[in-house]
This record gives sequence, structure tokens and C-alpha cells, in this order.
Amino acid sequence: MSEGIRVAVLGATGAVGKELIQLLEERAFPISHLKLLASARSAGETVSFRGESLTVEQVSAEAFRDVDLVLASAGGSASKAWAQTIVESGAVLVDNSSAFRMAENVPLVVPEINPQAAAQHQGILANPNCTTILMGLAVFPLHQYRPIQRLLVATYQSASGAGAKAMEEVKAQARAILNDETPPTEAFPYPLAFNVFPHNSPLNEQGYCQEEMKMVKETRKIFASPELRISATCVRVPVLRAHSEAINLEFAEPFPVGKAKEILSQSPGLTLQEDWENNYFPMPNETTGKDDVFVGRIRQDISHPCGLELWLSGDQIRKGAALNAVQIAELLVKDNLLTPTTQSSAVSV
Amino acid sequence: MSEGIRVAVLGATGAVGKELIQLLEERAFPISHLKLLASARSAGETVSFRGESLTVEQVSAEAFRDVDLVLASAGGSASKAWAQTIVESGAVLVDNSSAFRMAENVPLVVPEINPQAAAQHQGILANPNCTTILMGLAVFPLHQYRPIQRLLVATYQSASGAGAKAMEEVKAQARAILNDETPPTEAFPYPLAFNVFPHNSPLNEQGYCQEEMKMVKETRKIFASPELRISATCVRVPVLRAHSEAINLEFAEPFPVGKAKEILSQSPGLTLQEDWENNYFPMPNETTGKDDVFVGRIRQDISHPCGLELWLSGDQIRKGAALNAVQIAELLVKDNLLTPTTQSSAVSV
Repeated sequence: MSEGIRVAVLGATGAVGKELIQLLEERAFPISHLKLLASARSAGETVSFRGESLTVEQVSAEAFRDVDLVLASAGGSASKAWAQTIVESGAVLVDNSSAFRMAENVPLVVPEINPQAAAQHQGILANPNCTTILMGLAVFPLHQYRPIQRLLVATYQSASGAGAKAMEEVKAQARAILNDETPPTEAFPYPLAFNVFPHNSPLNEQGYCQEEMKMVKETRKIFASPELRISATCVRVPVLRAHSEAINLEFAEPFPVGKAKEILSQSPGLTLQEDWENNYFPMPNETTGKDDVFVGRIRQDISHPCGLELWLSGDQIRKGAALNAVQIAELLVKDNLLTPTTQSSAVSV
Repeated sequence: MSEGIRVAVLGATGAVGKELIQLLEERAFPISHLKLLASARSAGETVSFRGESLTVEQVSAEAFRDVDLVLASAGGSASKAWAQTIVESGAVLVDNSSAFRMAENVPLVVPEINPQAAAQHQGILANPNCTTILMGLAVFPLHQYRPIQRLLVATYQSASGAGAKAMEEVKAQARAILNDETPPTEAFPYPLAFNVFPHNSPLNEQGYCQEEMKMVKETRKIFASPELRISATCVRVPVLRAHSEAINLEFAEPFPVGKAKEILSQSPGLTLQEDWENNYFPMPNETTGKDDVFVGRIRQDISHPCGLELWLSGDQIRKGAALNAVQIAELLVKDNLLTPTTQSSAVSV
């Protein structure tokens, strides 16, 4: 284990953390040493990696010594609490929380969209929100061909966006409802099984929830299109771990459907899935566990001569979180961006 | 039982049929005689009405003799098969299927929106599609105040739209998935439990499914706005019997949110439900069994100066089908539109 990168995963026991570890193994990320970190509550658990059983350690300042790269998915407060320490100890942080996404000196990266942004990092890179990543993959290739004038999206978001507990809660709720019992609601404010509700993140004064504003602001930053007009309606649905989105795009000129399909069928990270005869389009029960975002039902919007409608589904934990973070890490390795020179100026937290 | 109207319910054993019978009782519809009709398969079943047990008869031409009003919810082919007979026998047909909705001489009625249209009937009146009724109730009052320029809608449709069997199937699917078994798929082409998929009605050449085109065409007809620009994305979600919709409206001028709320809080058939502090908005598990359509999350669209976003949820079987049909019947009674003079010219089928 002498050659390679010393990696720490912070939040190793969460839904995304577990997927991160699995992806590091699957994708043969060049690791010389892997350290698994979590809060005191989860320390002591064991996780399998490359056939070995690794014990999760409690996070501490010392834990980040002799580490080159930290993949963090332990929530915004943990990231805020440890970022300075991580960067000062000489490691690069790829953060899955929302803590630093909109910070000016933190690149917000989807490797298929803006890999060039990674080079600007000053110790921290942020992984975008799940719904933003999935949408970005599908619409950025179209935006490159013909700039989007306005984007409307309605989401169908799975329970996994609220963590592993929430996934278990939806199953427990379904069991309870099928047995005519009261469904438990701890992870969610309302029952999600056999129900849907607008995303329960805090609302701003304009009536948009945080999740919706993430889609708006993060997409603008990733696309380097600060004026892009976007509105989002985020809704939770009783699905376990893949998100779906209905997207309406307006352009300044008509966008031929055939051209859109041609572009999307050739874009990285995307699978165009359309079987019109069988009404078979992307579905979360099939995109679960897949790397690609699946896009289909590309239609000319009959309400607007320059509009396109599309539908997508993608794994929230995989491309929506862990996979994208590992891809950022791979980009750092490929472009030699883990060297000390890029880590000179720490981000102020 | 001498005074009053002689009513027949065709499709008495279906999800909507059962609700029709219950609503006729609840709303004390002035019935002198109630006849319950269904296919041979369901004939012989008994249904309770006003404390009596009524036996379902097999539908036949004779069954419509001595009937003033037929409420039909047995599917488009049954409606097409029996409409002529019903009208010729002197009864008025309120049809819940899509068979006659777009026929020129058939009024398509939502009593809160276009009650005046009922007077034009020639023996048949049509009940709109569920998603159309729910959306119409919420957007027509705004359209009256300031004409809508463009309407985009994404739906979150429950299993009940595919019938009573489909509701049972979703529950059976959920049970199977929770037990790691293969979910049954007879009513639906794909598993709906813990999944979502674009509405599986036939697609037209432009890529819109029938359900979506119903929302487009029926709304235009009900609003008497044949040029109204509408696009819809219809999606099934694993909810039992209430539909939800995310709606984006464009106007020619800004539409103040306060004005929209004032209008919607005073509109018939609607309940404005917004608790911004608790992120509590209309949800299908709560609108199930309710008469009103619940609307909330009224926001200024941040992507368009003249845009409004809103969210609604309403019972698909009740206001989305049976209640609206009974309200049409009530309108016929109130406006004396069951008299023979209005039934002179039968619709050609």
C-alpha cells in the first residue's frame, strides 16, 4: 500500500458513505490507505473494502494527518466543523454537503460538465445536490448546442435524499399502512408511503424551498450561466433511491427533437431510453444502482414553438452523490490536482 | 318512491360506480328509483343504498326503460355501446368515460366552471377526465381574472385512475417488494409500488400520451378557450386515490400572489391550504375522501415575471370523477334539464 493516495471517507456509515467506499473499490481508485471516519455514535462499526474488514474510527483532528484526500458525506455541520482542519493538514476535501457549494473559491463540479473548474480549487471542491447533478447531465449538452432561455422542472424525489433512515422509514410506513396501522414519521414530517408531498426543506420568502433553490443556484454555477432562468418544484415520492424529473426547456429558436436525441445519445453519463411503442421510459426502479442518468420522452413542447419536454431518472445515491464525488476525485488524480501547491490557500470557513 | 328521478348507475361495481352510489345517498339526490347495472360478470352483486340492499342487474336495452337519468362509469366501450339506446329511451346520460367528451354536441361540464354549458345537451353530457377537473377548478378562477397565456403541468397520479383493481395491485406490489418477492403487474405494465412512471396511455405522434392530451383538449373545451397553450407531463405515482399536480401559469402581466390567494380562497370547490412555517401543503393522503380540491404553495415564478407556480391535490374518485358527475346531475335537476324537450335530438354515436 505504499504507492497511491491516502484517502479518508468522513461519514462512512451513511447511505452515501457506504456507496463511496463501494465505488472506490469498484472503480479501482488508486488508494494506498483508506481510513473510515464517522461520529462517535458510528465508530467501531466495520465495513468491508477489497476483502478486508475496516473499522470505522471516530473523527478527530489527528485522523486527517497523513491523508491526501477526504471524501465527506456527513452533513453540512460536520463538513463545516472539519474543513479547515482537513485543508490545513494538507488534504483536499471533496465535500458532498451543501456547506461550501456556493462559496466563490470552491469549485462545484460535475466532471461531465465543468471538469475545468476543478483546477481552481483551494483545498475544497463541492459535489452538487443530487437533483442538480441529474438534471445538469441531461440539459447541459443541449445548452451547449443552443443556450437554454428558461428551465422549469418538477421532481419526483426518492426517500434516499433524506438518508438511510428515511429509506427504512418509508418501508416501515408502507408495512404499517398495509396493516391499517399508523405509519411512523421520524425522518419525514409526514407519511411518504402511498403519499407525496412538496420537499420539506426550509422555505424562503419567495416560497421556494432550499432544495429548489439548490437546483436554481447550483445549476447556474456549474453551467457558468449566472443569469439562467430556472424555476423548480421539488416533490418527494415514495420511491427508495432514484430520483425522476420532468423538465421543460425553452430556447430562443426551435430545438429539433431529432437533434436533441442525437446529442443526448452521445453525451457522457447519459443513456437515452425511449421505447415509444411500449410506453417504456426511464423509471426509478430500474435506474437504481446504475451509474448513468437515463433520459427519454423527448418531445417538442406543444405549448411553445421553441420548447422541449424531457423526462429523466437516475440513482440519487450513485450519480446523484457518491459516484459524482468519486469522479471528482478521479479528476483530481488525473489532472494532478492533489499536489501541495494547489492547497496553499485554505478556504475560510 | 313515486316523486323524484328514476336513476340508473351503469358500472355500479367499479371504484367510481360505488362512489357514485354513495354520493347519491350522501347528497340526498332526489331519487324515486335506483337501478344498478353492470356487465354479466358483476351482475348479482349487492350494494347498499339508503339502508336497502340492491342487486346489480346485467345491463340490457330493457334496463334503460323508465329511467330518467343514467350515470355511466363502465368505460368508453360500454358508453359507446349503450349511449344511443339510453338517449332513445328518453333518459339523459351523464358519462364518465372519454367516449363523448370531445363531441361537439356533448357539453363537457365542471359545474363550478361552465354550468351554462349543460343547457346545450342533446341527451348526453360528459364528465371530464380526473386530472382535468382538478386542474380546472384551481386555474379557472385565475383565468377569469387574467387570461392564462400558457399552462404547464406535471402530474403525480394515483393508482385509482386505473380502477379498483389497480389500487389493489399497488398494495399487492408493495407487500411483494417488502418481502423481496416479484411484484404482480396485471393492471399496470410496470410495478408502481416504490416506483413512478410516465402515464401508460397510448402515445400520439408528437409523443404526448392520451392522458396528457385529455388535459390539453378538455381544458380548452371547458374553459371555452380553444387556443389556450397547454403542455402536460402525466406521471403515475404509488398513491392510492388522490392526484396531485404541479402547475406553472404564464400571464400577459404579473399576477400578484396575494391576489391569486384571495381569488382561490373564495372559489367554489377549492380549499386554499398553506402553512408555510410547517411546510404543510396539500397531500394526497389527506385529500383522499374529501370533496374539495386543495391548492397551495402559490408562488411567483422566479423564472418569469408574469409566472405563477401552484400545487394541488384532490381525490381522483370523488371530485375527479363521481362527485363531479353527481354535481352535473344536480345541475340538470336544478335547471330542469331532464325534461323530454331537451332530449329530442340524439347524439350520433
